Amino acid sequence: MHIKHLKIVNFRNYKSSDFDFSEGVNIIFGPNGTGKTSILEAIYFLGISKSFRTSSDRDMLSFSEEHFHVFGEFYNSKKQKLLVNFNYQKDVGKKAFVNGEKLEKLTEIIGKIPIVILSPEYENISSSGPLLRRKFLDRVISLTDREYLKKLIDYRNILRERNELLKDYQRKAFFDYDVLMEAIDERLVDCAVYIYTARRNFLREFRGIVRKEMEELSGRVRIYDMRLDRESLEEDYKDVLKKKLLENFPRDVAIARTTSGPHLERLSIIFDGKDIRDIGSQGEQKIALVAIKLAEAEFIYNRLKERPILLFDDVFAYLDENHRQNLCCKLVSGCQIILTTTDKGVLAYFSKDVTVEAIELDVA
Amino acid sequence: MHIKHLKIVNFRNYKSSDFDFSEGVNIIFGPNGTGKTSILEAIYFLGISKSFRTSSDRDMLSFSEEHFHVFGEFYNSKKQKLLVNFNYQKDVGKKAFVNGEKLEKLTEIIGKIPIVILSPEYENISSSGPLLRRKFLDRVISLTDREYLKKLIDYRNILRERNELLKDYQRKAFFDYDVLMEAIDERLVDCAVYIYTARRNFLREFRGIVRKEMEELSGRVRIYDMRLDRESLEEDYKDVLKKKLLENFPRDVAIARTTSGPHLERLSIIFDGKDIRDIGSQGEQKIALVAIKLAEAEFIYNRLKERPILLFDDVFAYLDENHRQNLCCKLVSGCQIILTTTDKGVLAYFSKDVTVEAIELDVA
Repeated sequence: MHIKHLKIVNFRNYKSSDFDFSEGVNIIFGPNGTGKTSILEAIYFLGISKSFRTSSDRDMLSFSEEHFHVFGEFYNSKKQKLLVNFNYQKDVGKKAFVNGEKLEKLTEIIGKIPIVILSPEYENISSSGPLLRRKFLDRVISLTDREYLKKLIDYRNILRERNELLKDYQRKAFFDYDVLMEAIDERLVDCAVYIYTARRNFLREFRGIVRKEMEELSGRVRIYDMRLDRESLEEDYKDVLKKKLLENFPRDVAIARTTSGPHLERLSIIFDGKDIRDIGSQGEQKIALVAIKLAEAEFIYNRLKERPILLFDDVFAYLDENHRQNLCCKLVSGCQIILTTTDKGVLAYFSKDVTVEAIELDVA
Repeated sequence: MHIKHLKIVNFRNYKSSDFDFSEGVNIIFGPNGTGKTSILEAIYFLGISKSFRTSSDRDMLSFSEEHFHVFGEFYNSKKQKLLVNFNYQKDVGKKAFVNGEKLEKLTEIIGKIPIVILSPEYENISSSGPLLRRKFLDRVISLTDREYLKKLIDYRNILRERNELLKDYQRKAFFDYDVLMEAIDERLVDCAVYIYTARRNFLREFRGIVRKEMEELSGRVRIYDMRLDRESLEEDYKDVLKKKLLENFPRDVAIARTTSGPHLERLSIIFDGKDIRDIGSQGEQKIALVAIKLAEAEFIYNRLKERPILLFDDVFAYLDENHRQNLCCKLVSGCQIILTTTDKGVLAYFSKDVTVEAIELDVA
C-alpha cells in the first residue's frame, strides 16, 4: 500500500496544503513546530479514523475554523486506487468517504489501509511505560484476526457485567459464590481461553521476527525476548482460571473488581536478561521499539500480503550513527516509508542508488 | 557547585572507572548502550541519594557483583571541598559518607549538592504526562523552603488519617459529619492553606523566569504560562476548602477518599494558548522542558546563592539546528554542565572561545 497524494485543509497549522509522496522513502524535514508530525497524523487519520496524538478530533481543527478536510489517494499492491476523504465539522463530527461512497460506520475504514506508526507521542499515549504493552498485542492480533477482536469485546462486556455484580454483592455484604456468578464466569473463561491462546500463538511467531530485526539493527546477537506473565506454566489454562476466579471471589467482592484474567496480563520486554524498562537506555529502548515496529510491518505483510505504510516520527532521535546507518539500510525493503526529522544529515545514511523524496517545511 | 572527580565501582556496566570534569561544559559522547546516562545517574545519586531511573538500588549493581561504590569530589562556590561517598551492599543497603563522616540519615545529603537534571527517562518515571506536574512544584519549592516540606509531610499524614476514618464510616454506613471529622479537617485546612499559598507565590516568580528562558531559546515572543486549577478564583481559600470538605463529605464517605485539597491540584503548561500536552510537538515539548530546567537552575541560584550542576541527558534529541545553537549559547553561563549525546556534531554549536571537555565512551 502507498499514498500518492495528500491534501489537508484547516488541519492543525495548515490552511490548505498538498503533498506528493514517492512509493519508496520520503523524508519530511523542518524546524521544530513546523507541522512535520501533523502530516503523519493526517495519513494515520485516513487509515484508522482517529489521531495518535489526541482523543478529540477538535484538537486537529485549525484555530478559529469550523471544519477540516483530509483527503488521500492510495494505491494497493494490485495498483487499485483508493480515494479516502474525511470531513470534520465542529459540533457535528466527522464523515468518511471511500471512492466517493459514504461509510455507514467509521470503523469500516480499519484494515483497508495498513499503517505502522512509530511516534514518541503515540508511545506516551498508548502505554504508561515507555514501551508497548498489552494494548499493542491486542491491536496487532486484531488486525489480522477478526475473531480475536470479537472475543476481546465480548470479554470486556462480560467483565463489566461481573464487576457490576461484584459491586452489588459488596453493597449487600454477600460473599457466597452463587449460580449467577458461576454462569458469568463460565462465559468469561470461554473468551479468556481464546484470548490467552491467541496471544501466545502470536508471540511465538512474533518474537522471532523481532529478534531478527533487532540483530540486524544492532549488528550483533542480543538476548532478547517478549513474554507474558507465567507464560509456560499453565498447561490447562481453562481450569486454572476457573479455580482462580473461585478462590479470589471473596477478595473480588471486597474490592468490587475482578483480579484474575487476561485483562491483567502484562507483556514484558527482555533485553540482555533484564526488563527493558529497568535497564534499557533511551537509545536501547528506541532500538527495541524500532525492531518491534519493523516486525509489525513484516507480520502484517505475512498475513495480509499487503505491505503497510511506515510512518516514523523522528525515529533518529537517540540513535547513534551506527544504528542510523543500519536502520536506513533496512528502510529500502518494499514498504513506503514516510519519516520526519529536523536533521538533514540523515540523507547521508542512505545509499546513493536509493531515491529519497525530500519534503521541506518552513517556519510558518 | 561543581564536581571535579567521579569514581564508580561495580556500578551498572562499569567495573571501576574514573572521570574528571571541568568547571564549565562537559560533553559525554558514545554510541547507544555504552553507559552515558549511567555517569549522570551516579552524579545524581551522590546529590539526592537515589537514582532517577529506578526505585531499586539493586538495579544499579553490576551483574553478579555484591556491592557498588560511588565517590565524588565536589567544590562549592567558596571553593570548599565536599567528598561524598556511597557504598551499597546487596541485602544490606547503602551508607553515605560526607568528608569521611557517616550520615545518620541518607536524606541529610539533600540540599548539599544542588543538581538540576533533564532526562527523558526521568520525565517518564516522575510524571504520567510528558511534562512535569505537581511533583515538580513540590520538589522545587521544598528545595528552598524547609517549612513547605514539613507542611507537605504533615498534610500527607493528616490526609491518610482522614481517609482511614472515611473508610471506617463507609463500613458502618455512617454519613454524619461529626466532631472527629471536623477536628481532622481543621488541621488539614491549616496545612493546605500554607501549601496553596506557597505554590502560587512560587509560580508567580517562576513562570516569569521560564517565559524569559523560553523566548531566549526560541528567539521569539511566545504565549507561555504555567498555572494551577482555578488559580485566581479563590480569594479566601481557607473558607472555600472548609466548605468543600463539608459539602463533599457524603461522597467522600461513599468512596472512602478525600476529593478536595492540594493533593489533587494540577499544574497546566500553556503554550501558544493551548495545553502543551494536547498541541505541543515533541520538539516544542522538549523546548518547554529545557526552559523549565534552566529556570529551575536560576531559581535555585537566586535562593541558595549556589549554582546547581546541570545534568542534561540527550537534550539535543528532537531539537532543530536553531534551538541547538541557542541552547549551546545559554549553556556557558556559570553552571557546571554535563551533557550526553550520540552526536559529535553538537561541538560545532559552541563558540570557539568556549572550552568544552569531551569525554568519549567506547563500546564495551
